[in-house]
Amino acid sequence: MAAAAAARLLRLAPRRLQVPKASPLAALSFPLPRAAPLAAASGRRQRFCTAAQASTPASTAAAETTGAAGEAVGEFRKRLRVSDVKGGEDEGVAWVGKELAVRGWVRTCRAQRTVTFVEVNDGSCLSNMQCVLTPETEGYEQIDSVTTGASVLVEGVVASSQGGKQKVELKVSKITVIGKSDPTSFPIQKKRASREFLRTVAHLRPRTNTFGAVARVRNALSYATHKFFQDNGFVWVSSPIITASDCEGAGEQFYVTTLLSNSVEGGSLVKDIPATKDGRVDWSQDFFCKPAFLTVSGQLNGETYASALSDIYTFGPTFRAENSNTSRHLAEFWMIEPELAFADLNDDMACATAYLQYVVKYILENCKEDMDFFNTWVEKGIIDRLNDVVQKNFVHLSYTDAVELLLGSKKKFEFPVKWGLDLQSEHERYITEVVFGGRPVIIRDYPKEIKAFYMRENDDGKTVAAMDLLVPRVGELIGGSQREERLDYLEARLDEQNLNKESYWWYLDLRRYGSVPHAGFGLGFERLVQFATGIDNIRDAIPFPRVPGSAEF
Amino acid sequence: MAAAAAARLLRLAPRRLQVPKASPLAALSFPLPRAAPLAAASGRRQRFCTAAQASTPASTAAAETTGAAGEAVGEFRKRLRVSDVKGGEDEGVAWVGKELAVRGWVRTCRAQRTVTFVEVNDGSCLSNMQCVLTPETEGYEQIDSVTTGASVLVEGVVASSQGGKQKVELKVSKITVIGKSDPTSFPIQKKRASREFLRTVAHLRPRTNTFGAVARVRNALSYATHKFFQDNGFVWVSSPIITASDCEGAGEQFYVTTLLSNSVEGGSLVKDIPATKDGRVDWSQDFFCKPAFLTVSGQLNGETYASALSDIYTFGPTFRAENSNTSRHLAEFWMIEPELAFADLNDDMACATAYLQYVVKYILENCKEDMDFFNTWVEKGIIDRLNDVVQKNFVHLSYTDAVELLLGSKKKFEFPVKWGLDLQSEHERYITEVVFGGRPVIIRDYPKEIKAFYMRENDDGKTVAAMDLLVPRVGELIGGSQREERLDYLEARLDEQNLNKESYWWYLDLRRYGSVPHAGFGLGFERLVQFATGIDNIRDAIPFPRVPGSAEF
Repeated sequence: MAAAAAARLLRLAPRRLQVPKASPLAALSFPLPRAAPLAAASGRRQRFCTAAQASTPASTAAAETTGAAGEAVGEFRKRLRVSDVKGGEDEGVAWVGKELAVRGWVRTCRAQRTVTFVEVNDGSCLSNMQCVLTPETEGYEQIDSVTTGASVLVEGVVASSQGGKQKVELKVSKITVIGKSDPTSFPIQKKRASREFLRTVAHLRPRTNTFGAVARVRNALSYATHKFFQDNGFVWVSSPIITASDCEGAGEQFYVTTLLSNSVEGGSLVKDIPATKDGRVDWSQDFFCKPAFLTVSGQLNGETYASALSDIYTFGPTFRAENSNTSRHLAEFWMIEPELAFADLNDDMACATAYLQYVVKYILENCKEDMDFFNTWVEKGIIDRLNDVVQKNFVHLSYTDAVELLLGSKKKFEFPVKWGLDLQSEHERYITEVVFGGRPVIIRDYPKEIKAFYMRENDDGKTVAAMDLLVPRVGELIGGSQREERLDYLEARLDEQNLNKESYWWYLDLRRYGSVPHAGFGLGFERLVQFATGIDNIRDAIPFPRVPGSAEF
Repeated sequence: MAAAAAARLLRLAPRRLQVPKASPLAALSFPLPRAAPLAAASGRRQRFCTAAQASTPASTAAAETTGAAGEAVGEFRKRLRVSDVKGGEDEGVAWVGKELAVRGWVRTCRAQRTVTFVEVNDGSCLSNMQCVLTPETEGYEQIDSVTTGASVLVEGVVASSQGGKQKVELKVSKITVIGKSDPTSFPIQKKRASREFLRTVAHLRPRTNTFGAVARVRNALSYATHKFFQDNGFVWVSSPIITASDCEGAGEQFYVTTLLSNSVEGGSLVKDIPATKDGRVDWSQDFFCKPAFLTVSGQLNGETYASALSDIYTFGPTFRAENSNTSRHLAEFWMIEPELAFADLNDDMACATAYLQYVVKYILENCKEDMDFFNTWVEKGIIDRLNDVVQKNFVHLSYTDAVELLLGSKKKFEFPVKWGLDLQSEHERYITEVVFGGRPVIIRDYPKEIKAFYMRENDDGKTVAAMDLLVPRVGELIGGSQREERLDYLEARLDEQNLNKESYWWYLDLRRYGSVPHAGFGLGFERLVQFATGIDNIRDAIPFPRVPGSAEF
């Protein structure tokens, strides 16, 4: 490369990489064809460091005033990625003729008579950068190491591609193998591996098309969630993960303890576990001085903040020690639980609807390539299904009406339909898929016997202001309710369900001091990822799934 | 209120509240003086429901096509809050003459000769809405219930305020007490309560100025964190909370178990805990079939995704079962751990610096009122201190230079200074506060003996590419490193530290298959909240702190 060109690129190098001193890599990186938006809001003037550890004029400021040796920290700039090149409307055509460098992992390497095609992926998008090498390419002698999984740096010029699969490719002037990948042992070869197998290599599966796409869409759903609530004035509250509050039913909870931790060689002895005189576990010696659990929901804690800040949402992990080996259950999953003050069930339904439409619209607009991939390879028609969610009016009907609808249908159900019984998945799917033709449906006002104590009793005395939002194919995606804000009603409900009122002192305090009508809902984030990607098994909707018998990695 | 005015407001009602049928409240709410931005991206045409449960024309669409009874879900709109009125540059002057309704909690009620001033706060900002009542105000007969902590709905007209403390106030035409608050028992009265006391009423403390402000600034720091990384192309990865991976040192970890959960009346019996023949805890009967813990860091998991997606960040809870009753330790805290692929320590320092400057600038710009409050009441000068962070160049120097600096200083330190020993808080503060005059400082290249196994060994063979970012007053805020990407070096380091290589098989795989230079850092989110608010005790920087002996609420 000409020294002049190198010097020009130097000023634009967005990220410097520590490399052997003889290499020119430190100087070469993605040139930016237009002014890059400086996302990092920095009041400092721009500086362009010429080498990783060079002292710049600005760095002497501290030394001048203090006499101390200190160098200025370099500027951080967004790194240019394959998605920046190929992700635009023109799929990279504007970049033709530009020099750039791509760093990523080899997906495939195909040698033809005169040229070799190397597909390089950097994880920023589904698309690879097709890199064209010839025997004249600098570094071509390393071609035997350019195997699936290897990391490479390829430098070259963007050119129009002859192939039909992409508009541009990189004519490589130089290739450098950064990290090899033994083709005989690398677990993820080109041929499609089963999802079951990929779970056993969860540390490598994000390098596949499917799991890369799931990771990006999951990220987009998360960010869209924050954006929706922040734009609407909700405050994110971190509800506690460990709780010794007696409020949570001890049924399917994990214990959190240090009583087992004084391990000896070969494993903790049961007789070493602190015990009381009558042989019971001595919780007073545990870390929190009483039994503590992993939370099953942040709702009750969220209500305390909604009773001060008006509207809040939680977004954090929750846990169920449920022995369910299904495609819809995880022992550890993320929940989103907004809580709206001065709100009733109608506000709650409106919020849940707007939220779901917002996040779905967000990924349809911002993850087009990944969504096309899911539409083709994972669930045919998913984009239509999601477009329906964005465009169609959601409807709501009462549980009572839903039961009448089901009773009046000609369909034979496996489970009985009767007022007072909970609706089963087959019933829910019939309503949303058949009765309402693929439209999301909210069922509201359930019998109070089948719903939680904190749900607000309706005037009929038989139902509570609960709602379940059902979507086609998945069934229930969101569950919510207006909360019982009347102290006497709430205490009566606790009594009815044989719950200990004293344990709920702080929750009841919210009804003693400035109680307000309020409502909220909960959404399992991995269910949303399933719904939005078409991924069958919830274990593939989270990076490292935790299920009975498995918490690897 | 005139029927015509009510009808006009009706069309603008942003949130309908379920109220007794006789009340006109359903119709009255915040009118919007200008077009409200519809944050919820909805493709549906706008509809204005006239009553909470009214059937609208749009709602019959489903019924028409299916014959089923279903009503359309109402529109969700952002609720107008006190911050929308008073938070602008003009502090609400543009609202003078407008009718509006405020829902919130009474902070104080002061009766004067002819008028009564009620300060109402809805949590959207520090400012209260000063509400002016006279005996002619509708609902004035409830004035005895308008006490601190009570929730109220006040309706009236915005007027210029005579008082010096605010530009506008609300001339109240009607007041409604929504939820009373017994003044003899409400724990948070006007007089200032100690922070220690407020921790015992953590469910009510967000209703105080200090904790409301902390909650809002914490929220802003969280959102700014997401914005910074998303704008720079990082993917949020949820690292696992529960882990049975042997990678994590078992030292100060919480066990997660269901072995203790078969509780009997009066508490679990130690003899009921599953044991092997030789009396050891039988982990094969536990939920995950082996010992499982709460994570202490998501870094190693994060590295797996950085080795596929290039740049990622985690933001989730982490845990330490450390018996530290200090103002800087929590058993449960949130961590932010970005990981950058194709990056070295210089990139890492640049990213940490840009990140910190971004989030600090964000709260200075977006939380002005709350920051002024902290500046006045919590830590005088904090705004200047934070402005320094945004505006001054961060400097970096090597650990070796730092040791020489300390040895050459005339200051007497409590702890010894010697190459090879870790720096203590007094040393760190001396460097950033005295030597560099309040400038944030990064110390890098620490002796490898005092740093973790995964940090990259420098060419000198004695130090590793680690960095600690120090800020005035707080000391270390961020710790990071370039990771050892060379398999042979990494294995040697594991051996040196007597760690079991087999346990790290998947972590080592990242070096076997397409290894890349990468770097990252970790930041305790509550430390950042402390740093940004001046709050002394970390227990006041998180809604529900978990510390030895306490996991209440």
